[in-house]
Parts: sequence; structure tokens; C-alpha cells
Amino acid sequence: MQLGRVIGTVWATRKDERLEGLRLLIVQDVDLQLRPKASFTIAVDSVQSGVGELVLVTKGSSARQTRVTKDRPVDAVIMASVDNLEFTDPALLEQAYRARLAQVESGLDGYVEP
Amino acid sequence: MQLGRVIGTVWATRKDERLEGLRLLIVQDVDLQLRPKASFTIAVDSVQSGVGELVLVTKGSSARQTRVTKDRPVDAVIMASVDNLEFTDPALLEQAYRARLAQVESGLDGYVEP
Amino acid sequence: MQLGRVIGTVWATRKDERLEGLRLLIVQDVDLQLRPKASFTIAVDSVQSGVGELVLVTKGSSARQTRVTKDRPVDAVIMASVDNLEFTDPALLEQAYRARLAQVESGLDGYVEP
Amino acid sequence: MQLGRVIGTVWATRKDERLEGLRLLIVQDVDLQLRPKASFTIAVDSVQSGVGELVLVTKGSSARQTRVTKDRPVDAVIMASVDNLEFTDPALLEQAYRARLAQVESGLDGYVEP
Amino acid sequence: MQLGRVIGTVWATRKDERLEGLRLLIVQDVDLQLRPKASFTIAVDSVQSGVGELVLVTKGSSARQTRVTKDRPVDAVIMASVDNLEFTDPALLEQAYRARLAQVESGLDGYVEP
Repeated sequence: MQLGRVIGTVWATRKDERLEGLRLLIVQDVDLQLRPKASFTIAVDSVQSGVGELVLVTKGSSARQTRVTKDRPVDAVIMASVDNLEFTDPALLEQAYRARLAQVESGLDGYVEP
Repeated sequence: MQLGRVIGTVWATRKDERLEGLRLLIVQDVDLQLRPKASFTIAVDSVQSGVGELVLVTKGSSARQTRVTKDRPVDAVIMASVDNLEFTDPALLEQAYRARLAQVESGLDGYVEP
Repeated sequence: MQLGRVIGTVWATRKDERLEGLRLLIVQDVDLQLRPKASFTIAVDSVQSGVGELVLVTKGSSARQTRVTKDRPVDAVIMASVDNLEFTDPALLEQAYRARLAQVESGLDGYVEP
Repeated sequence: MQLGRVIGTVWATRKDERLEGLRLLIVQDVDLQLRPKASFTIAVDSVQSGVGELVLVTKGSSARQTRVTKDRPVDAVIMASVDNLEFTDPALLEQAYRARLAQVESGLDGYVEP
Repeated sequence: MQLGRVIGTVWATRKDERLEGLRLLIVQDVDLQLRPKASFTIAVDSVQSGVGELVLVTKGSSARQTRVTKDRPVDAVIMASVDNLEFTDPALLEQAYRARLAQVESGLDGYVEP
């Protein structure tokens, strides 16, 4: 799924009949620091999202697996409103991983026969 | 879904039998300022689009969920004609979001027990 | 769908049994001026394409919707041979669009009560 | 489908039960000159591929259409071993195409009533 | 499938009902040297992954083929925890391939009638 921020709405009167009643929102992709990226998606809303909200977007055939999008010509749906993100800097995790690996390889991990 | 502008037509006489009767349009991707991007798609038309029109394109298996594209070898369909876009500058939304966050964190939001 | 030019063939003797009898062609992506792009696809042929021919390629699950590719492990199919492309320069269409918009906004479009 | 070269193996003990018994290979994408590209894919093997082998990879839902991958959480499968590629330089094909076009347009193609 | 490292969690209270009970993890894409790439995915966990762990992510409709993700609006799932990677430098494999090819072409491979 992709992380994004709702920034607006698309208005479309003439459309496929199976799109009737669906809200079409403009979602700007954001990075983990929540800064806007260059790319955006038009997604159907399934969780009553508002402008400014952080959301998750599901794409492809899975976008048709919500109650509001079933069997409709929709390839992107907002299926969650994000409360919070919690993560560790990937570079730190990489360092910790390499340190553990070096320890294992140098035989310093005090392995004792069970 | 992706935002695009119809710029032309593809003519193809020899084709899979399930494509008979479908209009194949050339859709240039556009950004939110409606400026043409470098990429384009050939999409089947399901809403009688004309050259110059702003449209939404659905891709992948969802492109087969309109009446005209069902069970056909089609991976892109124009399923809406866009009347209007309404959106806020992502940078402004980011600023507002960070301001609210700072306010919450500094305890200045005048929280009162209900 | 994507626009491409057939440039060659892939020979593969050892393969999944459901690929037996299918022609695997190399399709170079081309832009609207028909100049080769950097990317290419290996696609199954469903319309007797020859080297040098301009074609349309359908990708993803929709690539399994032709008679020859049904239920096969195929994610790209040539489903049309292109006779001709007809299109307007996107920059011109954008100018015309902005001109109409400006006219509407300045009230110069001579609106008359019906 | 994508052209790649098998360069190694992924070992994974803890995994979804439907992945039991499948070989997970690392496939480096290659260009038509068979030079390694920057991107790679982890794909399930369905044709007994070995390291160093040139292969075709099918992605998406079509990757579930081989006997070994049916109904499994797999989005990439090696479904053919490549014996040989045969292709013409796209730039040459473009030149030939433009030459034919120019000939047709200047009426020099010696059209004779049948 | 794509190789990644779990770096954190997304918290989302308001969401599609079919997402209830699923853990949403942030997975940073990594290269074969396990260095973090710029891109990341939000994926549902199906193998009890922890932060720092190397994992495989399946995308698209295949992401719905695990027990926990069936029929849910999910386009990315962690379906394996990676123990180890084993691979050869693609440039070395390319050299070996070209050497074999040259040998075959110069008739030096000592072919003997069976």
C-alpha cells in the first residue's frame, strides 16, 4: 500500500455508470517524513477522508475489495486513515544488522552447546 | 486512476476479435496543473471522449469492469470525463499539519477534561 | 495499452507446458513519433505480427484475455497491429484549453439566456 | 515478460505455508545485449533453472498460472529458459519504416493496377 | 517478489472493516547488498515479522493469496522472512557466458560426433 495525503477532489459528471456515488479524491504521494513527492493518484474514498488527511491507498485489483468499490472500474482506493507512523532509520538498522553479522562471523557470540 | 488528456486515435484493422468495435484513444498523462507529462497510454474509450478532453484512466484488471471492456484484452479504459479539479497546494497542507503537530506537542491546544 | 515495434524473437525450448505453441516476440517500446525508447517487453503474439511492425501490447491479467493466451503464464500480449496514429500536439491542446478557460472566466463568451 | 539472468538463491525457512517446496531465485534484469541492469526480482522457479541461465520471468497474477505456483502468494515466476534471442537494431527498423513511408508519400512506389 | 527490511509500523484506527486485525508494516526496499533504497511499501504481515528483519514482499493480486489477506483490500504482503541470500556477481556471470559463447563460435569446444 502507498502512503499519501488527500489534497483535493475530482469532479466528473459524465462517467461509467458503476462510478455513480463514489467520491474521487486526489492523493499526493508522501515519503516517510511526510513530505510531498512528485507523484499523485486519483483514488476512490472508502473511509470518509478529508482534505489534509494522511491515508493509505491500495492499488490494482485489490482496490476492488472494499464494499464501495466491488466490481467497479476502480484501480485505487483509500482504505485507511493513518493515525501515526513509527519507524527506525533504515541506515541504523543496517548498521545493527552488519554488527550482529560481524559478531557471528568472528565467533564472539559466546555460543554454548545446548 | 490517472489524469490525462485525449490527444488522438489509434487505427488498427488487424486485431484480436474481442477488440472489434472499441475506440482506441491516445491519452497523454498530465500533472495537476494540466501540463503534459512525457508518458502516454493507449486506452479504450467508454464515455464518448473527444480530442482535447480531460479524462480519468483506470488501468490493470479494473479496466475490464466497464460494460464495453468486460472480458476483453484491455488494460486501460477511459471511464470518466473530468469537469473540474479542486485541490490545495501540498506544501501548504504539510505546513498546516506540522503546525497542528507542534501545537499538540507543546501542550498549547487548551485541552479540557470533558 | 502500450505502443511498440516488433524487433525480434525469443527461442525457448525448455518452458512451462502451457507456453507450447506460442510465439514469443521482442517488442521495443516507441514514443508517439515512433522513435525507439530504452525499454522493451517479451510478448506473446496473437495477431501474426512480423518484424518491423507497429503493434499494441496489453499487459497484466488482461494479457490472458485473448484466445491464444487464456489461462497461460503470460503477462504481455500483442493484440493489435497498428495501421496509423492520428494526434494533436499536447502543447497546442493545452493552449487551446487555457484560451477557452480564460474566455469563460472573463465573461467574453457571449452567454445568452436560453 | 522480462528477460533476466539467474544469479542466486534466497533461503527462507519461516514463510507462508503455500510457499513450501518452491525454489526462490534471484533474477537480475538484463538488456537485449544481455548486460545486467540495476533492477532484480525474486522469482519462483518452474523450469529447473540454474545459476547463470538466461530466463523469462512472468509477473503479476499471470505468475500464478503455472502448475507449481497456482493459488500461491507469488508475483513472479521463471516460466522459460532462453536458448537464443534474434533481433534487428530498432534504429535500422525505424529507418526502413521511414523510407517506406517517404516512398509511399512521394508516389514513387510504382503502383500498378492488379 | 521484492526484498526489503521491516523498519516500522503504521497505526490506523479508521479503516475498511476487512483490514481489522491486520498488522501494517513499513518495509524499506533494499538492494542485493542489503543497502536501503529510496522506495518503501506498506505491507500486511503474514509471518510475524519484527523490526530490522529481512523479508520478501509479494504485490498485486497475489498479495491476497495468504490465509490472512484473502479477499481483503491489500496489495502487498510479507510472506517470507529471509534467512540468507547467496548469489554471484552478475558481471562475472556475464563474462563466463561470453567466454562460453566465444568458444562455441570459434569451434574450439572439441565437438565429437556421438
